[in-house]
Amino acid sequence: MSDLKIWLKNQQEVVDTKLDQLLPSSETAPATIHQAMRYSMFAGGKRLRPILCLAAAEACGGAQEAALYPACAVEVMHTYSLVHDDLPCMDDDDLRRGRPTSHVVYGEGVAVLTGDALLTEAFTIVAQTPQTPLYNASHFVSELSETGGSKKLIGGQVLDLEGEGQKLNLQQLIQIHEAKTAALLCSSLRLGGMSANCSPEQLQALTDFGYNLGLAFQVIDDILDVTQTTEQLGKTAGKDEAVDKSTYPAILGLEESKKEAARLTKLALDAIKPFGEKGRRLDEIARYMLEREF
Amino acid sequence: MSDLKIWLKNQQEVVDTKLDQLLPSSETAPATIHQAMRYSMFAGGKRLRPILCLAAAEACGGAQEAALYPACAVEVMHTYSLVHDDLPCMDDDDLRRGRPTSHVVYGEGVAVLTGDALLTEAFTIVAQTPQTPLYNASHFVSELSETGGSKKLIGGQVLDLEGEGQKLNLQQLIQIHEAKTAALLCSSLRLGGMSANCSPEQLQALTDFGYNLGLAFQVIDDILDVTQTTEQLGKTAGKDEAVDKSTYPAILGLEESKKEAARLTKLALDAIKPFGEKGRRLDEIARYMLEREF
Repeated sequence: MSDLKIWLKNQQEVVDTKLDQLLPSSETAPATIHQAMRYSMFAGGKRLRPILCLAAAEACGGAQEAALYPACAVEVMHTYSLVHDDLPCMDDDDLRRGRPTSHVVYGEGVAVLTGDALLTEAFTIVAQTPQTPLYNASHFVSELSETGGSKKLIGGQVLDLEGEGQKLNLQQLIQIHEAKTAALLCSSLRLGGMSANCSPEQLQALTDFGYNLGLAFQVIDDILDVTQTTEQLGKTAGKDEAVDKSTYPAILGLEESKKEAARLTKLALDAIKPFGEKGRRLDEIARYMLEREF
Repeated sequence: MSDLKIWLKNQQEVVDTKLDQLLPSSETAPATIHQAMRYSMFAGGKRLRPILCLAAAEACGGAQEAALYPACAVEVMHTYSLVHDDLPCMDDDDLRRGRPTSHVVYGEGVAVLTGDALLTEAFTIVAQTPQTPLYNASHFVSELSETGGSKKLIGGQVLDLEGEGQKLNLQQLIQIHEAKTAALLCSSLRLGGMSANCSPEQLQALTDFGYNLGLAFQVIDDILDVTQTTEQLGKTAGKDEAVDKSTYPAILGLEESKKEAARLTKLALDAIKPFGEKGRRLDEIARYMLEREF
């Protein structure tokens, strides 16, 4: 296993251990909701967002212990959005990470409440991030709530729902991906930096890195939906084309989409050059995401 | 109009004005979600929770301007819970405050996202509460997130879903009402007190007041469902009995339920005696809630 892979696996374990500590146990009453929360939280997620958060803190010279709170908070928020996106009244997905989705296992009512509970928990967790000279709980919470809110994460899902069955142009597609994917990746990095008391310049560099990486990530996601099998993806493959969804490959073609992913990744890599050796992990993660599935 | 009614109306207007300032405008993109958020937020709610929050701040000698942030936050959280509770996969209600519910107007997908957006917005707002010597954003956010979380507000709804069609005993019923109703009323009062830098003793008094008032409120709600018409309620009357739901009147009978409401109200009133004249509004609101619908 490469050095990066070992490091990634180690970071995943650190995040999983902290998540396990922070989330109510399965026995906590009412048990149904806590079991359902854990079912979706511990479903083999790769913990990309928390790992970016930890790597951003490292790039700014911060302690991992402090960064683990926002790292877990962004993963909990990401998971809530998956649980709700999978609902029959939304994307109607029965399979996620190779397992039946929350509403298939627990029913729609409990799945809605599970998403609600995870969203609420994300704020319980992020509010515990230790204060730094430049940033306090008010900053950490606002960063997460604005990214999760009606203008970004949720707004993107609304645009996605409204765009169903319509041919979107590239600009509209980018707008959705900025809101649905790039915003939370950006915030993962920003929160990691903030927990390490980053300078305004460092925060801007992390923002630029996250924005371009987020868009690159989505282009790659669209490409993999075309080129991989359901087994490889752990979710239904070819679904975008089946429902005539607007994607990068559909608009630009497969080859141009690959070039676009590479272009965005380069922009991301350029943004973090000022971190030098401390930004090595961020650099490696970005390259790794481009080269293969993450 | 009595002095209390004039004061209540004035407080409602103050809260509505602040909510209008804090929430994204209807024109903000994507317009659908912001229109849907405002449709449910400005639906003729009586603003009981924000008014309790403001009255608690007054009882502790605090400024209204500071208390308006938690006041609006609890109302936004309350409204999210109504939007999700009304969904077809939950209580399946088509009517709320005399108007079609969110999912009837906007569809289920957007209604789920509207609840999500309101829940997220509640944290954006509460994090703006000005810091006091004893309390900072971390305290305000934790208070709201724990009350809104899987052990209280959401946990209560899970118990409610699981209790459907079952005969609950009084203890089980109280457990649901503590979680679904009393907890957020308590937090409304506590957050008002905290925004006014209340002492630990004052915080405990507000907690005891809110707990008993919250239970009294729910007993009265159950009574009104039996004794009032759909027109008077602004929501479907007699629904509890129609779906064979466990309620105070069903378990204790109507007369005993009325006595229980009075007993709980007295406990609430006793709790705030230490506030003296400054607690006058809290006292008046509690009596008003017992005597007639609020």
